[in-house]
Amino acid sequence: MSAAFDFQPWMAAQLAAVEHALDTWVSIATTADMGHQAPADLMAAMRYAVQGGGKRLRPLLVLATAQATGAPPGHEAALRAACATELIHAYSLVHDDMPCMDNDVLRRGKPTVHVQFGEAVAMLAGDALQALAFELLTPDVGVISAAQQAQLCRLLSRAAGCAGMAGGQAIDLASVGLHLTEAQLREMHRLKTGALLQASVMMGAACGSASAQAQAALQTYGAAIGLAFQVVDDMLDVTADSATLGKTAGKDAAADKPTYVSLMGLTAAGAYAQSLHDQAVQALADSGLGDTQALQALANWVVNRSC
Amino acid sequence: MSAAFDFQPWMAAQLAAVEHALDTWVSIATTADMGHQAPADLMAAMRYAVQGGGKRLRPLLVLATAQATGAPPGHEAALRAACATELIHAYSLVHDDMPCMDNDVLRRGKPTVHVQFGEAVAMLAGDALQALAFELLTPDVGVISAAQQAQLCRLLSRAAGCAGMAGGQAIDLASVGLHLTEAQLREMHRLKTGALLQASVMMGAACGSASAQAQAALQTYGAAIGLAFQVVDDMLDVTADSATLGKTAGKDAAADKPTYVSLMGLTAAGAYAQSLHDQAVQALADSGLGDTQALQALANWVVNRSC
Repeated sequence: MSAAFDFQPWMAAQLAAVEHALDTWVSIATTADMGHQAPADLMAAMRYAVQGGGKRLRPLLVLATAQATGAPPGHEAALRAACATELIHAYSLVHDDMPCMDNDVLRRGKPTVHVQFGEAVAMLAGDALQALAFELLTPDVGVISAAQQAQLCRLLSRAAGCAGMAGGQAIDLASVGLHLTEAQLREMHRLKTGALLQASVMMGAACGSASAQAQAALQTYGAAIGLAFQVVDDMLDVTADSATLGKTAGKDAAADKPTYVSLMGLTAAGAYAQSLHDQAVQALADSGLGDTQALQALANWVVNRSC
Repeated sequence: MSAAFDFQPWMAAQLAAVEHALDTWVSIATTADMGHQAPADLMAAMRYAVQGGGKRLRPLLVLATAQATGAPPGHEAALRAACATELIHAYSLVHDDMPCMDNDVLRRGKPTVHVQFGEAVAMLAGDALQALAFELLTPDVGVISAAQQAQLCRLLSRAAGCAGMAGGQAIDLASVGLHLTEAQLREMHRLKTGALLQASVMMGAACGSASAQAQAALQTYGAAIGLAFQVVDDMLDVTADSATLGKTAGKDAAADKPTYVSLMGLTAAGAYAQSLHDQAVQALADSGLGDTQALQALANWVVNRSC
């Protein structure tokens, strides 16, 4: 075992790398001079959506898993994969906030993209951010091997689509006012949030080298973390205020959406989150990987976060 | 030179292959039983958007170029690439028809997706179709080589994003009521329609084998065809009726959008389309490729079509 792991400096260093990479790559993609004002608006909306902060949990999962599976620090494939997961997440928030979906006006403490830029530009910005995620994963072959590019695109596309995030959002929309069983709620979140979080872990692994045993353990870790994240999200929607969350608190209850809190109550939800955390940590122990401390610290953070 | 090329049976055979492949792959992706009604709606909307017919020009360009560059008939990479371009096109139409964009209720003679399924499902269906395009391009590596997968994703993501289709749509939106110069109009269409048409050609070439000379010629061909397609589209908006077009005729003028017809008049627009056709055909002659008859026939069809 290596020395005691200090999470805060690790996270600060990773976040700095991610923010710099996002700034760089999104700026490169969105500052092409096309001699016209309109794509400038689109591109400003894309930058606004991405540079608004956020927890960057998906990039952190990519980078922690890349590290655990032996990718060298600062590995460009891992940084690109990290940013790609965040672009998919960012686009989903832009679309999710629109009037035809959640109709939310506040995100990360700022006006949502459609409030700031109009609905049409917001929709196009989301569309273009999804495309940009796949652009980031497919640079010249000299930068990332073709095999890694293909694997990263494979994982990300499946996590984003109808059997992943988009499918989960459709279930979420249709579930307002319904009573879901715990199995149905879990399935919704497995798709809506879990698929991309799990894919972030597996994309990190694709940047390193993982045995079949390690891959299976990381799948379990990713699934448990993904669900724990959502359980805690449901708890924070009840217990935190909008200023802390940076988004509208209490909106699940206001929208009559089924949540883990409405289904099992706060205390049981907390215990469930803890059991998922323990599953994730056990999976890391089963993985056979040496350097899993960052992944373990992320599991702790997911269940103990306050926003 | 080979014997006289008969375009109709070639096109019929390619269309049959494309429709069958789209049916198969979209059905596989959208009939997973998730034990829940909501993704069923999403998936029905995805099928509705894709199976509604249409000219399938992008898939035909992929397949014709794959053939010209030596890919064997029925090559799975080419079929997947063909379907992926159509999925991107289909998603763009779903989003483009929405109330915050063109607010159109009729497409290919049927109610548009948001009219049929609601705005939220339409937005998610578009999002999921974009992801599905990249899923189709990234099957197991045994099916298509990793190098081809990476190259196909590279071409498609760049054509779809803010420096391609989405960027062109943003310019289009912002150009309503403005007077554009011919250069500005051409730039808008180069992005909005041309980028994906040109990418379709280059994705076909990625499935075969093309010299640098052939690649450059195919780029020229794709750019010329892409622009010619749009010039003819603008002409048909004026000269055809809604029943023939399967979409609302005259809507450019009604929306006060700049078009080639409003800019240069019908006669000059027709002459311009013809000159672009001739550029495309010349590029084929310069390509050094042997079997370019399907590509030549598609160039003819683009400028002579009536819908």
